Amino acid sequence: MKNTNNAYNLYVQKMRKIADVRHSISVLNWDKEVNLPTKGSQARSRQVATLAGIAHEMSIDKELGGLLDTLYKGNHLDERQRRNIELSHEDYQKSTKYSTNFVIRLSETTSEAYHAWLKARQENDFAFFKEPLSALVDIKKEEAQLLGYKNHPYDALMDIFEPGANTADTDILFKDVREQLVDFVRRIREKPQVDDGFMRKFYPKDQQWKLGVDMLKKMGYDFEAGRQDISEHPFTTNFASSDVRVTTRIDENDFGNMLWSCIHEGGHALYEQGLPEEQYGLPLGNFLSLGIHESQSRLWENNVGRSLPYWKANYQQLQSIFPDNLNAVSLMDFYKAMNRVNPSFIRTESDELHYHFHILIRYEIEKGLIEGSLQSDDLRDIWNEKYKEYLNIDVPDDKRGILQDIHWSHGSFGYFPTYSMGSFYAAQLHKQAQKDIPDLIRQTEQGNHTDLLAWLRENIHQYGRFYTADELCKRITGEKLNFRYFMEYAEEKYSGIYGL
Amino acid sequence: MKNTNNAYNLYVQKMRKIADVRHSISVLNWDKEVNLPTKGSQARSRQVATLAGIAHEMSIDKELGGLLDTLYKGNHLDERQRRNIELSHEDYQKSTKYSTNFVIRLSETTSEAYHAWLKARQENDFAFFKEPLSALVDIKKEEAQLLGYKNHPYDALMDIFEPGANTADTDILFKDVREQLVDFVRRIREKPQVDDGFMRKFYPKDQQWKLGVDMLKKMGYDFEAGRQDISEHPFTTNFASSDVRVTTRIDENDFGNMLWSCIHEGGHALYEQGLPEEQYGLPLGNFLSLGIHESQSRLWENNVGRSLPYWKANYQQLQSIFPDNLNAVSLMDFYKAMNRVNPSFIRTESDELHYHFHILIRYEIEKGLIEGSLQSDDLRDIWNEKYKEYLNIDVPDDKRGILQDIHWSHGSFGYFPTYSMGSFYAAQLHKQAQKDIPDLIRQTEQGNHTDLLAWLRENIHQYGRFYTADELCKRITGEKLNFRYFMEYAEEKYSGIYGL
Repeated sequence: MKNTNNAYNLYVQKMRKIADVRHSISVLNWDKEVNLPTKGSQARSRQVATLAGIAHEMSIDKELGGLLDTLYKGNHLDERQRRNIELSHEDYQKSTKYSTNFVIRLSETTSEAYHAWLKARQENDFAFFKEPLSALVDIKKEEAQLLGYKNHPYDALMDIFEPGANTADTDILFKDVREQLVDFVRRIREKPQVDDGFMRKFYPKDQQWKLGVDMLKKMGYDFEAGRQDISEHPFTTNFASSDVRVTTRIDENDFGNMLWSCIHEGGHALYEQGLPEEQYGLPLGNFLSLGIHESQSRLWENNVGRSLPYWKANYQQLQSIFPDNLNAVSLMDFYKAMNRVNPSFIRTESDELHYHFHILIRYEIEKGLIEGSLQSDDLRDIWNEKYKEYLNIDVPDDKRGILQDIHWSHGSFGYFPTYSMGSFYAAQLHKQAQKDIPDLIRQTEQGNHTDLLAWLRENIHQYGRFYTADELCKRITGEKLNFRYFMEYAEEKYSGIYGL
Repeated sequence: MKNTNNAYNLYVQKMRKIADVRHSISVLNWDKEVNLPTKGSQARSRQVATLAGIAHEMSIDKELGGLLDTLYKGNHLDERQRRNIELSHEDYQKSTKYSTNFVIRLSETTSEAYHAWLKARQENDFAFFKEPLSALVDIKKEEAQLLGYKNHPYDALMDIFEPGANTADTDILFKDVREQLVDFVRRIREKPQVDDGFMRKFYPKDQQWKLGVDMLKKMGYDFEAGRQDISEHPFTTNFASSDVRVTTRIDENDFGNMLWSCIHEGGHALYEQGLPEEQYGLPLGNFLSLGIHESQSRLWENNVGRSLPYWKANYQQLQSIFPDNLNAVSLMDFYKAMNRVNPSFIRTESDELHYHFHILIRYEIEKGLIEGSLQSDDLRDIWNEKYKEYLNIDVPDDKRGILQDIHWSHGSFGYFPTYSMGSFYAAQLHKQAQKDIPDLIRQTEQGNHTDLLAWLRENIHQYGRFYTADELCKRITGEKLNFRYFMEYAEEKYSGIYGL
């Protein structure tokens, strides 16, 4: 027993040191996005690369492997300790599947693809990206073989971002999207469009900034355990649950830009601030999956932040900050504007509904590339055809088409589906929260989010990776992820807005 | 030849990785001073400690040691490569003198002393610090033995901060301070005092900030390779010569606070920005010594920034920014005010002349403690007596007396003398610059610092650690550090101001 305790403590020590290095990388990257002087970028890249190398070496360290084997076979651990060991053991097995040679080839192929993508964007021509992308797809196929899978090679890649996810389940989700959401959006687009012109009046930077900070505070974001800064692309990062930082950007002529991205990042940050501090560096101190992470941001951004009850609480304040822009706009018109449904070329600028067509298209393409039924040669045409089919728009060029996302250039295949899963989880969870907290909507109308946050903390945040996403979802809602909840949410909300 | 090249390249690789880790620590520490949310400090401390441990392990790595031995004995290196190897070899030998056991004991003793110092400051009572300080002195004596020295154990400790410095040379400097400066200051204090009341009028924060940034730009500080932020204590830090950051603080009711600290840190930063980028991670890419570093900050702060020529160039602008405070103040009165000589209890608030009495006192005490002629028991009385003797003031309490500096609580014995050396080097170097650039003073009067910066770059910055401080000083000025130049500078300047 004593030996097991010693071994477990040694394991904790080693894991925390790895976490220290990884979080240091996060500090360096945060600083890069927020503060870095232009000439400092080369040195910063090499510093990040060195730390990443050190973290990788530590995570495949043989002593750690031996320790994990011993602890995995032992039986003197409590439930949480056991789960940490299971997960770390699994992570370790995965890490050691990558040979040094493969890691170097992957890194080189990715680096080439990234630079080709930059070039292709600059030239607005997919042709520059085609071959490097093809090489990247080949090595990702190899990675899928190396990691192993039961049914479909794409499963192995999804699993990196969403442990346990697979094409069988995801096919069902996106079949529902195709069969239900496409038709629903078509019906909306037959209705008269709502007006959101007042969103693009002049909203001064300082006032937007203060408003964003205030919204974060009202959600329950702890500014003593984090801070907000400005960066080109908004993001959330964490160095510990006691230091979780968000960034935003402000466009003085597009009000929505800052506000909902602020609430979105706030949702991510609340998850990280709610992870158990005493599990720092261990699986149970880590977020569960990208889909669950995204469920937290989407729940706050959309199910709360784009709801009528939320704005019943906040609209008067908003009008008082921007009287010239908003005094003549009713609460209902403001609510409609923020939920305007309109197809866009760019995923990140999409409304809540069309968003899933963007993801669906990427999912179909990625799956096809990895299983070999699609080739990167034909990809621009396929992309553009799918945008015509699902969004009914003609992609004008590659920058607003197939070159818009950075993900593929980073070799992140299997990442996109987690965005949709996040929204679907959010709808399912928010529905359940309304059952468990009977006056949740009234509380939201009063600007009170205490119970909702406590519910998220209790049901999701505190567990880290203790449950799988499937288990967690079943535990909370009684069933696994089901598109039905998102569809019901969409029908209820948009029928009202568009008078269906 | 090929093998030596390979070995040298391998050495460079290893050194750069160590530098990457050390600079990452600097990023974490910079962020701690500038950005850290209150609850994040514990996690940050452990992250810094982990990286420090990794950097230490890398720097005593046996493979590196073997490589250095081989290269040190080899003879196919060019002059700069050879010097890098010599210095790295020396550094490595020193590092490996520290046993793990000693490092742990030193770290524990320091940590205890630091917390005792915090407590003692809080209670305003040296008694709380006495014993931990005594323990710290004992282990520093042990360190001196372990590092080795020729004549005096304190030499070994000075050498950590100022390679090559020793008590024999430093005794001469401070003998001059005692014999020449004490008497000179006494003569000043017999004269009527100059007025600096207008310095403590209200100077709005934003305008001070902009002024500071402007002064940095005019010195030649490259904002594309650095940035300025606010922190509690101003400091300069570098992550590469392409990313050198300064901080300042602003007191709206004490104008001088921001301005000269800004110029001071700017001087440090220009040195770091001027170090050769291609020598990143190697001794020749590193600053030479703390004394030389301080010479750069002091030269800009005092020899330039508190000179009449400098303000001939800048005073009109200053008056236009703060017309209410300064329009009625003549250039000469402003110049006198910034050079007001008045004893203070606190070293960091001292004028340019009394400053060296503060250092002299610390030097005498440190030397006494390390050689064993003084005991920490008697230290408060000794401190207070020396302040009476050299500054003619009665120390009112321990916070404004023996507890004011953080250095001892960190175990930094041998650090203080480098502050005085810095000022003395600054005077000697600035004198030489005036010889080498005949119209330097006229350039300064025109706000043109291009030639001065180029002179510093060429004579000092570009060399990193290539020369020793002694060699460098002789190379530039024809003789080693000599207090005479500071005394001449002081006599010329203050005779004018106080009409001696």
